[in-house]
Amino acid sequence: MANSISLQQLAVGIDIGGTNTKFGIVDRSGNILFSGEVSSRNHADPEFFIDELYEHLQPLIERVGGIGRIKGIGVGAPNGNYYTGTVEYAPNLPWKGIIPLVKIISNKFRLPSILTNDANAAALGEMMYGAAKNMKDFIMITLGTGVGSGIVANGQLIYGHDGFAGELGHTVIIPNGRLHEGPGKYGSLESYASATGVRLTAIEMMDKSDEPSLLRAIPPDEIDSKKVYEAAVKDDKLAKEVFAFTGQILGMALANFVMFSSPEAIILFGGLVKAGDLILKPTVENMEDNLIKIFQNKVKILISHLREADAAILGASALVWDMGDK
Amino acid sequence: MANSISLQQLAVGIDIGGTNTKFGIVDRSGNILFSGEVSSRNHADPEFFIDELYEHLQPLIERVGGIGRIKGIGVGAPNGNYYTGTVEYAPNLPWKGIIPLVKIISNKFRLPSILTNDANAAALGEMMYGAAKNMKDFIMITLGTGVGSGIVANGQLIYGHDGFAGELGHTVIIPNGRLHEGPGKYGSLESYASATGVRLTAIEMMDKSDEPSLLRAIPPDEIDSKKVYEAAVKDDKLAKEVFAFTGQILGMALANFVMFSSPEAIILFGGLVKAGDLILKPTVENMEDNLIKIFQNKVKILISHLREADAAILGASALVWDMGDK
Repeated sequence: MANSISLQQLAVGIDIGGTNTKFGIVDRSGNILFSGEVSSRNHADPEFFIDELYEHLQPLIERVGGIGRIKGIGVGAPNGNYYTGTVEYAPNLPWKGIIPLVKIISNKFRLPSILTNDANAAALGEMMYGAAKNMKDFIMITLGTGVGSGIVANGQLIYGHDGFAGELGHTVIIPNGRLHEGPGKYGSLESYASATGVRLTAIEMMDKSDEPSLLRAIPPDEIDSKKVYEAAVKDDKLAKEVFAFTGQILGMALANFVMFSSPEAIILFGGLVKAGDLILKPTVENMEDNLIKIFQNKVKILISHLREADAAILGASALVWDMGDK
Repeated sequence: MANSISLQQLAVGIDIGGTNTKFGIVDRSGNILFSGEVSSRNHADPEFFIDELYEHLQPLIERVGGIGRIKGIGVGAPNGNYYTGTVEYAPNLPWKGIIPLVKIISNKFRLPSILTNDANAAALGEMMYGAAKNMKDFIMITLGTGVGSGIVANGQLIYGHDGFAGELGHTVIIPNGRLHEGPGKYGSLESYASATGVRLTAIEMMDKSDEPSLLRAIPPDEIDSKKVYEAAVKDDKLAKEVFAFTGQILGMALANFVMFSSPEAIILFGGLVKAGDLILKPTVENMEDNLIKIFQNKVKILISHLREADAAILGASALVWDMGDK
């Protein structure tokens, strides 16, 4: 015990994704001491999944000195609910219904654990270790296959009355716009400003015009946001228009978010951000265009500088340092 | 002094509007002990305006026992900034530029004072005395000449990094939609879901169709939301469509706000709410339609039950009980 007092406390971060689950042991400065990965898809029963995770993670915990040195386990998962500690009806995970994940993990590891959705965890990671260090008001937007978001105001994550706040990808930005098949809704930000959205926009633009494009040589099934990007950097006009349009939608959405919570910065993360100025320039332009005067030219649009491989683990671990404030 | 200890502390609430300024002395239960009103328009110099306000308010303060019994002065004003205590470029007030209102009031009354915008003050009033009592997550929307809003999350008003959060009336809801002349922006919620918006929708609908309507007998200049309401309750089809359309826009906007902060309730206040189910029914329907499943059928849409004449004073006074938390 004397030993554990002299050693710095550590946190475990677990990020449960649709395909893989990443985990790591992290110190307060954001150094990942050990990390690993298991498939999220090996077990139809979440208890067995946690058993497998335990077998991989427990030896690492022993190597840093055992559970006495771990403050707790933070978990990020799609549809993870901070208040109830459950994952509820997550469309991309193999477990159906409501899964009491915090209970299963706490019992197995004999450590306090805490859960939130993956985008909220990412926002906490940025606040603790990343681009939002020392900020009290910011919005984190992840532009990947879908659009996730975490909102921090007054220095706290906004969870809402039920733990589900911050579903900005599902806000309607084009009324009666593009159908988003998952939720069955029309015109959401996610249906445009995601990797999937970029792919659909490219296909739509090719259908609607005769503009020659490098993309026309690719079978429609194989067009993805990466291929659109590759064409755009080769100065392909249509591909560049795809990003300009995507930025226009995203910029309009960001303006609305700014007029909601007036953040100091919006932090962007995820695959689409790799398109750089192709998407960022129209995004910023259209955001500013749609802001009323009092908000103009003061919101910073920042790119996350956390390594993508680390960000999820860091975000989940950041939950632990906040524990007890719950 | 012994006297002041045994007596309950009181707060002063001042609501500065474009035309009139209301003030009152309020106890912690929301009883208004004394109140009054002065014109906001008598003085081009805000110092002289506060001098006049002092002449009316100070005698009331004396009647409750003098400044020793007053905890502070809360002020709600358009474009009032909580952090800086200034009113900045308020288009509807007679004072131009940046007015250091808190400083002027504190100096004159020798009492601590605190400022926020009128919609934020209204939200605090609802939380302290009204429909949002004991709620930690709600949004207050005022549907009057314009659309104001105050957002409470985690039990705190969201001010944003600069004090200007919660300008939901200016969020874009119809891209490239109706021009809002004040801010020079297109398609904002306020340009549709305000008294002014209802008037414009009625005029547009008459222009675009041959539908007979009671409103056609009224000169366009004289059409206002009250006259549209009067026609609608007489079962005028076009007038009812005006409210249905307004509710459609409002409902879509409310869905977006729900997916942002997941409030327990949205509290509606102001002139348009008097249209009752004519506007509320389409609003709720369209909100639910645009919400993804996890949010459906759980957000309460509530009507403020504070008297309109009292609400502004109560809201401003509620700021005072929060003081010190700043």
